[in-house]
Amino acid sequence: MTSDAERHTAKMARIKAARDRMMETKTGEKGLIIVHTGKGKGKSSAGFGMILRCIAHGMPCAVVQFIKGAMPTGERTLISGHFGHICRFYTMGEGFTWETQDKERDIAAARVAWDKAQELILDAEIRMVLLDEINIALRYGYLEADEVVGFLRDRKPPMTHVVLTGRNAPAALLEAADLATEMTLLKHPFREGIRAQKGVEF
Amino acid sequence: MTSDAERHTAKMARIKAARDRMMETKTGEKGLIIVHTGKGKGKSSAGFGMILRCIAHGMPCAVVQFIKGAMPTGERTLISGHFGHICRFYTMGEGFTWETQDKERDIAAARVAWDKAQELILDAEIRMVLLDEINIALRYGYLEADEVVGFLRDRKPPMTHVVLTGRNAPAALLEAADLATEMTLLKHPFREGIRAQKGVEF
Repeated sequence: MTSDAERHTAKMARIKAARDRMMETKTGEKGLIIVHTGKGKGKSSAGFGMILRCIAHGMPCAVVQFIKGAMPTGERTLISGHFGHICRFYTMGEGFTWETQDKERDIAAARVAWDKAQELILDAEIRMVLLDEINIALRYGYLEADEVVGFLRDRKPPMTHVVLTGRNAPAALLEAADLATEMTLLKHPFREGIRAQKGVEF
Repeated sequence: MTSDAERHTAKMARIKAARDRMMETKTGEKGLIIVHTGKGKGKSSAGFGMILRCIAHGMPCAVVQFIKGAMPTGERTLISGHFGHICRFYTMGEGFTWETQDKERDIAAARVAWDKAQELILDAEIRMVLLDEINIALRYGYLEADEVVGFLRDRKPPMTHVVLTGRNAPAALLEAADLATEMTLLKHPFREGIRAQKGVEF
C-alpha cells in the first residue's frame, strides 16, 4: 500500500530530478539586457533589488535616474549614504514630463542622462547599470530606441548587465532583451481613494 | 501660429492639471495588503524594495521568509548586517518542497513561519511585514488561505502594511488585497542556456 506521504515524496523526487536535469543544461554566463515594463508596480523596485544583490556581492554597479521624482528619494539616500563606494548614483532627469512642460529641456536632460549611461556601461569596473525610467524618455521620443538598442547590442561589454525600466518599453528593446518582465496592475489603492504612502510609494 | 513646442507645453499642462485633480481626491491612508504574484521575476525584489524604503524612512519593519533558498542570501546579509536595528529578518522555511520531499516537515515549517508572521503583524511598533513566498505555502496547502486572509482582514492593525509574495496567489487573497501586481514572464535567459548569475538571480 502506498501512503499519501509516500506518493508526495515520490512526486517531489521526480520534480527535483527533472529540475536538476534542466539546470545542468544551463551553463552559460553573459551580461544580460534586462527589461522591466508594464503598468504595474515594482519595475524600479525590482531593479533596485538587483542593485542590492550586486552591493551584497561586492560587485561595482551604478544607477542613472532618467526621470527625477519618478523614484522615491529613499533609495538614493540609503544607497549613497551606505554604499556610495560600490554603487554610483546619478539623478539626471528634470521630473515627469507633465511637470516640466518644456520639451527642449526634457530632450536635453535625456541626452545628458544617456551620455552618462554610456560612459558607465563602457566602464570595465562596473558590472551592472540600472537605467531607471529610460523607457519614458524613449516613449516620448527624447531618445531614439534604435540608438539605445544599437549601443547595447554592439558596444556593451559582454559581461555587463544593464537593467532598463519604465512603462511602454519599445518593441526593439524587448526584442534585444535577454530577460523581460511585464508588471501588470491587478488592483490599485488609488481606486479606493487611498493616497501614496511612505514605504509603499515613496 | 502655434508651434510644436507650444502644443507640447499646452498638452503637458493639461495632463498635469488632470493628474493634480486626480491626486487631490486621494486623501486616505491605511495599512495595505499588497500582493506580488505571477511567473515573472521581481516579486521578492520589489517586496525588498519596499522594505528598503521603510528602512530609509526609519520605519520599523520585518521580513519572514517562508521558503529558505527561494531568495538570494545577499539581501539577508545586507539587511541584517547594516539595518538589523530597524528590520527584523527571519528565515523559517526548509527549502523548496521538491528539495525537502517531506510533506509533514514542510507543513510544520510553514506553521512556525505563520506563527512568527502573526506575532510581527500584531506588533504595534512594526509598520510593514514582508511575507516572502508565503503563496507557495498556500499553494501546496501547507497553510489555509482562509486562515491567512481572515487574520489579515480581522486582526491586522489598520496602519500596518503586509506584503505577500509568490506565484499562484489564491483568489481569496487577491480579493482581500488593496494593491496587487502580477509579474508576467516575457523572456527568460534560461531559454538560451544561460545559468543563474550573481546579482541577477542570487
